[in-house]
Amino acid sequence: MKIIDGGVTAPKGYKAAGIYAGIKKKRKDMALVYSVVPASGAGVFTTNVVKAAPVKWDIKLTKESKNIQAVIINSGVANACTGEEGWKNNYLMAKTVAENLNLSTEAVYTASTGVIGKQLPIDIIVNNIPKLVGELKETKEAGTLAAEAIMTTDTYSKECAVTFSIGGKEVTLGGMAKGSGMIHPNMATMIAVLTTDLSISKELLQEALSEDVKHTFNMISVDRDTSTNDTLVILANGMAGNPEIKEKNEDYYTFCKALNMVTTKLSKMLAADGEGATKLLEVTVNGAKTWEDAATLSKSVISSNLVKSMIFGKDANWGRVLCALGYSGVDFDPEKVDLVIESTYGSLMLAKDGLAVDYSEEKATDIFAADEVKVLVDIKQGSAAATAWGCDLTYDYVKINADYRS
Amino acid sequence: MKIIDGGVTAPKGYKAAGIYAGIKKKRKDMALVYSVVPASGAGVFTTNVVKAAPVKWDIKLTKESKNIQAVIINSGVANACTGEEGWKNNYLMAKTVAENLNLSTEAVYTASTGVIGKQLPIDIIVNNIPKLVGELKETKEAGTLAAEAIMTTDTYSKECAVTFSIGGKEVTLGGMAKGSGMIHPNMATMIAVLTTDLSISKELLQEALSEDVKHTFNMISVDRDTSTNDTLVILANGMAGNPEIKEKNEDYYTFCKALNMVTTKLSKMLAADGEGATKLLEVTVNGAKTWEDAATLSKSVISSNLVKSMIFGKDANWGRVLCALGYSGVDFDPEKVDLVIESTYGSLMLAKDGLAVDYSEEKATDIFAADEVKVLVDIKQGSAAATAWGCDLTYDYVKINADYRS
Repeated sequence: MKIIDGGVTAPKGYKAAGIYAGIKKKRKDMALVYSVVPASGAGVFTTNVVKAAPVKWDIKLTKESKNIQAVIINSGVANACTGEEGWKNNYLMAKTVAENLNLSTEAVYTASTGVIGKQLPIDIIVNNIPKLVGELKETKEAGTLAAEAIMTTDTYSKECAVTFSIGGKEVTLGGMAKGSGMIHPNMATMIAVLTTDLSISKELLQEALSEDVKHTFNMISVDRDTSTNDTLVILANGMAGNPEIKEKNEDYYTFCKALNMVTTKLSKMLAADGEGATKLLEVTVNGAKTWEDAATLSKSVISSNLVKSMIFGKDANWGRVLCALGYSGVDFDPEKVDLVIESTYGSLMLAKDGLAVDYSEEKATDIFAADEVKVLVDIKQGSAAATAWGCDLTYDYVKINADYRS
Repeated sequence: MKIIDGGVTAPKGYKAAGIYAGIKKKRKDMALVYSVVPASGAGVFTTNVVKAAPVKWDIKLTKESKNIQAVIINSGVANACTGEEGWKNNYLMAKTVAENLNLSTEAVYTASTGVIGKQLPIDIIVNNIPKLVGELKETKEAGTLAAEAIMTTDTYSKECAVTFSIGGKEVTLGGMAKGSGMIHPNMATMIAVLTTDLSISKELLQEALSEDVKHTFNMISVDRDTSTNDTLVILANGMAGNPEIKEKNEDYYTFCKALNMVTTKLSKMLAADGEGATKLLEVTVNGAKTWEDAATLSKSVISSNLVKSMIFGKDANWGRVLCALGYSGVDFDPEKVDLVIESTYGSLMLAKDGLAVDYSEEKATDIFAADEVKVLVDIKQGSAAATAWGCDLTYDYVKINADYRS
């Protein structure tokens, strides 16, 4: 199993395109991913009660459609809080893609990201779909154009791919994602599209995805705001030629491992590129009684504004980490907690058994100077562990969200 | 019932003092509140699993002590995550006050606020207690000195008092509080001390306080970080001479109303003076099925970094309010939600039945220019309502928490 260059066009039989249509002021704003043959589709979506029209559409398709063959995405407008008109616009977007690709409308997932409460500029979208379809290509570059077209306040595009072997066949899994703000996924992140040429039953594809997000996209937070548009979909078109995976055998777990490799990478990229972020913060809690406890504790730490400000300030105010563990809702003994910080610049124990260790503040500041900072917590209550990813809280987060209008 | 000038020294029989002892670099750092006769004491404290030594002490006293007569508070060091040594230092602080005032040690509440994980400079504290006791006075000015001595990153001191009549006797209730950062109380705020000359049973005093905080201190948030030191205590010394309140009669509810007046005012002052804040944000959710639903929804909105940044930017990006309602965990119909913003500069409907109203962005920006901004939400599911208070998220919040070392 190895990571390769590329994204959604890395597996066999996938084409992509990304163009500028005029929804946003300048940057690319429409993307399309297409499987040349019918594929199984699975997805996980926001748990926010307020769901965008494309999210409702994709939930319906995930339940009812046998095959999915395309994913159309626009950035700039989220098509959330848009009522009946928003639902019709979303349908028209899917239908126009379907007509141009000679598919059923119910084979087209949709996703939108951007400002909430505004109607889609549907004429611009419909008029640009033929151009978008015309630019579909199998190249790595085409995948990158698509990854760029789904960005909002992201500062770079996010792609990842991995190859692995199943039943003697080489299988590839690729993906792209966008994040940045309103990132505290409760089912999946803002928008991510995964593609694979694996042959697998729709049911197992969904199960693998649902299980995977618990450990990856659901373990990141930029600002504790769970979006109205969170969407993670995967297409599996079978073109690798492996015998179809129909049960939880060794092949299934090989696929789960590959899936985890891609989604972990994308999750970390989303956290590192959180709005205004200068650093990726990785928090691992060890010694918990259950995985759920460890996950709750680690998410509580990466979500704390005070911890996030401390990371930005390179200040080893470790009491804030203990404080965030303490209000997570998980019961533990504060007087057993060990706390270590770590980066490429070294490793340093800050607290042992809940008490300050006599450490060098200078060394702590040096460790915090790296782009990726790890906080390792051991609560010594059991043997479960979990890792969560977040970022620092900076002046630029405030600037972006006080000024950003579309 | 009317609000009067003053704080903890407003009721009969209370003295206070605030001095600079040298725990902090420059500003006052030790405060004492003293009742000249034994008083009933009640308190509510942080729900954080990590509890500071003074919090554990006060919880013990609230359960076991018949009378409380003094509250000693230091700022600069929180005495949290300090283990056995922290517990001993805290006891010594109470004991020294008790000796100087000729009280039992178990009649002295303690509170500490400041950096977590550092031991108290106990020599400085013990050596300065005689001076602190020597400066105890019944004046309004003495109350203000105490209110100033408990501040950390607060930009102004917070006091409030109210008089009311019970059984033909004039009763007074006064209070002081400090807040600013790590404010997302789950039982009470960082530190608040209330005093009254009312005569009331200890049980009813506790019940009134526990019920009251649900609607006041527990309805504010600065940064979603529930502190290790949250402490709200009240002393009632009976010097007003009213017949002791022993049941939930009209007098009890008169007291509850007065209590609510003082705690609401202090809560709003804490929210308005949140770290870096330029504005008080008040969010009221109407039309909920239950008070609990309304409270959860309104707290979700005031806690959202995206809503807080929007208020700072004076940008009517109302979709963020709907998004925060949507992930609160309360079920409602997004297509029924009305949303109005309001301040001294006017009132404006932004959304009706979950959809954008065609409003003037300029007028919205004008309304947001006030120091106090209200967001009124109607979800039209029932008749319950709740109000929560927060503040905007600003560059200065990040600055304070990236730089602050003690």
